[in-house]
Amino acid sequence: MIKYIFFDIDDTLFPTSEFAQLARKNAIRAMIEIGLPFKDSDELYSRLLKTIQKLGSNSDRHFSELLDELKIKKPARFIAAAVAAYHNTKTSILPYPEVPRLLLALREQGYKLYIATNGNAIKQWDKLIRLGIALYFEDVFVSEEIGTEKSKEFFVKVLEALKIKAIECLMIGDKEDKDILPAKEVGMRTILRLGKSAKHVADIEVNDLSNLLDIIKKL
Amino acid sequence: MIKYIFFDIDDTLFPTSEFAQLARKNAIRAMIEIGLPFKDSDELYSRLLKTIQKLGSNSDRHFSELLDELKIKKPARFIAAAVAAYHNTKTSILPYPEVPRLLLALREQGYKLYIATNGNAIKQWDKLIRLGIALYFEDVFVSEEIGTEKSKEFFVKVLEALKIKAIECLMIGDKEDKDILPAKEVGMRTILRLGKSAKHVADIEVNDLSNLLDIIKKL
Repeated sequence: MIKYIFFDIDDTLFPTSEFAQLARKNAIRAMIEIGLPFKDSDELYSRLLKTIQKLGSNSDRHFSELLDELKIKKPARFIAAAVAAYHNTKTSILPYPEVPRLLLALREQGYKLYIATNGNAIKQWDKLIRLGIALYFEDVFVSEEIGTEKSKEFFVKVLEALKIKAIECLMIGDKEDKDILPAKEVGMRTILRLGKSAKHVADIEVNDLSNLLDIIKKL
Repeated sequence: MIKYIFFDIDDTLFPTSEFAQLARKNAIRAMIEIGLPFKDSDELYSRLLKTIQKLGSNSDRHFSELLDELKIKKPARFIAAAVAAYHNTKTSILPYPEVPRLLLALREQGYKLYIATNGNAIKQWDKLIRLGIALYFEDVFVSEEIGTEKSKEFFVKVLEALKIKAIECLMIGDKEDKDILPAKEVGMRTILRLGKSAKHVADIEVNDLSNLLDIIKKL
């Protein structure tokens, strides 16, 4: 019987990719509005994506590097405008519409809820807080603190930390390689939130989380 | 005749101190809401002020240091909550009510407007952008870029950079030692926005900026 449910955050509880794209486009628009001497926002967006790829998505130098490449001499006003627009967009993230009600229903039914996610602990907590769903979760397991990206080892350490059995656990995520396969390897049940491609390795695949409560009861 | 007007930002164009206090109190409340095992928000606020004093106001480690002192073992959720609440408050800064209309009127009358401020260039631009008044200013002179805090030397460098004469300039600020005296030393006219204490060294003292346009015309 399932007692413990682990959720991935990004593109599982909210549409991360959509918000990241919007935040970056808003940042570009804000730099042009404040006077950047380049007017083609599509081209600037493409250049920004290349800069992000070059520096890695966790760098905090995306905009200053882009402005450096554009040979902007006094970049402070543009960095400030870009970062403000980016954060304003990121501040207004919303969960997938079915998520808050689902989490409340799961708690009412006695399930213990956890987050299992790659990345930085403060950033992931920030998302849960802004999504308005932080209080539903007992704890957050983040690769940075566990010491390894989501993998068999990651889930073994999580089970040890909580002193619980894999058979009582369900992992829900959108990535087969990071969320589903490693959780299966330790013996957890798995549900895939369907994205672009799927090799169909999860126990169950869903397009959204609306019927999750019924599905879990039948597991 | 006055042609160029320099403004300080903090507590001259918006009530910085009020917003900083509110942002810190909101950060404390957010940490308690997310489960911090300390409930006395007044005491936590006092401790935070001590931490800020210890690290300096420009450190980005205020909350993590405070949580460290409180011996909180997994601080990520509290740091995320505090920073989100702090930034949400800081994001909603508003100028003193007379300021936007005044800046527009000054521009209409042909005055060139500048900022002369201590601190970090990106942070100061961020304030102007969030206050919705960035476009009114020709340029921002920040101590970090000029290489010295507001002083006689600072204003000499500003005059050189713009190739203008002190006699054509007016400096408006809330601090006699940082805004008024050094500007007077290079020969600028000065207006003090009255704060707590004043030695009455400015040419003119005002309680707010409502009648600035008339005052400047008479200078």
